[in-house]
Amino acid sequence: MSKGQQTRATIVSEAMRAASVEGFQGISIGMLAERLKMSKSGLFAHFGSKEELEKAVLDEAADRFAAMVWQPALQAPRGRPRIEALFHNMLDWMLHNRDLPGGCIFMALSVEMDDKPGPVRDDLAEMQTRWQATVARSAQIAVQEGHFRADLDPRQFAFDMQGIMMAMSYYRRLLKDPSAVQRAEAAFADLLARSAAAPAAIETAPLRSL
Amino acid sequence: MSKGQQTRATIVSEAMRAASVEGFQGISIGMLAERLKMSKSGLFAHFGSKEELEKAVLDEAADRFAAMVWQPALQAPRGRPRIEALFHNMLDWMLHNRDLPGGCIFMALSVEMDDKPGPVRDDLAEMQTRWQATVARSAQIAVQEGHFRADLDPRQFAFDMQGIMMAMSYYRRLLKDPSAVQRAEAAFADLLARSAAAPAAIETAPLRSL
Repeated sequence: MSKGQQTRATIVSEAMRAASVEGFQGISIGMLAERLKMSKSGLFAHFGSKEELEKAVLDEAADRFAAMVWQPALQAPRGRPRIEALFHNMLDWMLHNRDLPGGCIFMALSVEMDDKPGPVRDDLAEMQTRWQATVARSAQIAVQEGHFRADLDPRQFAFDMQGIMMAMSYYRRLLKDPSAVQRAEAAFADLLARSAAAPAAIETAPLRSL
Repeated sequence: MSKGQQTRATIVSEAMRAASVEGFQGISIGMLAERLKMSKSGLFAHFGSKEELEKAVLDEAADRFAAMVWQPALQAPRGRPRIEALFHNMLDWMLHNRDLPGGCIFMALSVEMDDKPGPVRDDLAEMQTRWQATVARSAQIAVQEGHFRADLDPRQFAFDMQGIMMAMSYYRRLLKDPSAVQRAEAAFADLLARSAAAPAAIETAPLRSL
């Protein structure tokens, strides 16, 4: 990386850390310049506007999410093992990510930005729509692999998994409930169990024995 | 109400509307004074600080939530019917509340305030902890009534219901997914089905017939 690229990366990292706690509303070019001991004009040389910086933060967060959640899940076998890897990687992303002291930045920004039309909201909504489709496709693959039942609605699976993640974050971060992670794991185990393909041998056995 | 009380109520309502969209971070005494065509000092006569106003907004929102969600649910019979009423009243609160153009104010503030220690965060966390306990108690009553299975974990039920509400809000408000409400209803129907007491007659019939 050139020196300019390094500086740019430092600014984006700092903005991402701050936004995970304060939201985009709570960060400003001036505040970042102060934290990074740079001049405001020096910072503006890298980002022409706060909006440009916000879009760069979203892209950076998406890259890190891919590296921490999605790419390692691809190492797991297709179907249910990959879904389980996704879930555990997402928990890690939300709980053990020192670059995001305020927790999942997408969750924070989703609530902040949902009422704020514009290109940043559009980018965020597009990323999140794509992510939901990715989870649904992973569930679809688990159906094809015979791990999940044939009549499973993969988009409903993605919705349900999203709800588990959001409730976990709310129980843990707001309520400080020590059972948050355990409850999320129980909810996910239940989601897997009710998505599972019926063990055909057991289901048909009683009929045969009659 | 005295004139002073009326003015105070008007300020709180306007602050609540604005906070549902902008969060507490996005509102200021100056902005509210302008919207209400009052002087800043006039507004400060009612609330000594922004923090005091924020606490008044939380109290007002809690009163309205009780009036729109909880109290009408008490008209439904104890147990499962009351839980169903709670769910539908919460959907109404989130979808058809013209006092809250930004959707459920508790959901918006939960994400905004989780990282901001102080009395406002404490009030919010206490309210939300109490609400989760209320939902859990309602599920416990459904167990006592024989509607839900005896080994149901009522706190897990509350966690699961919270996840459904949060995912609904995210699908609807950020993703603009037209199936958001339908998915929440499907998820809730599934939650009820897997919480239901086993229909003893059916379960034991095959054994008897053998």
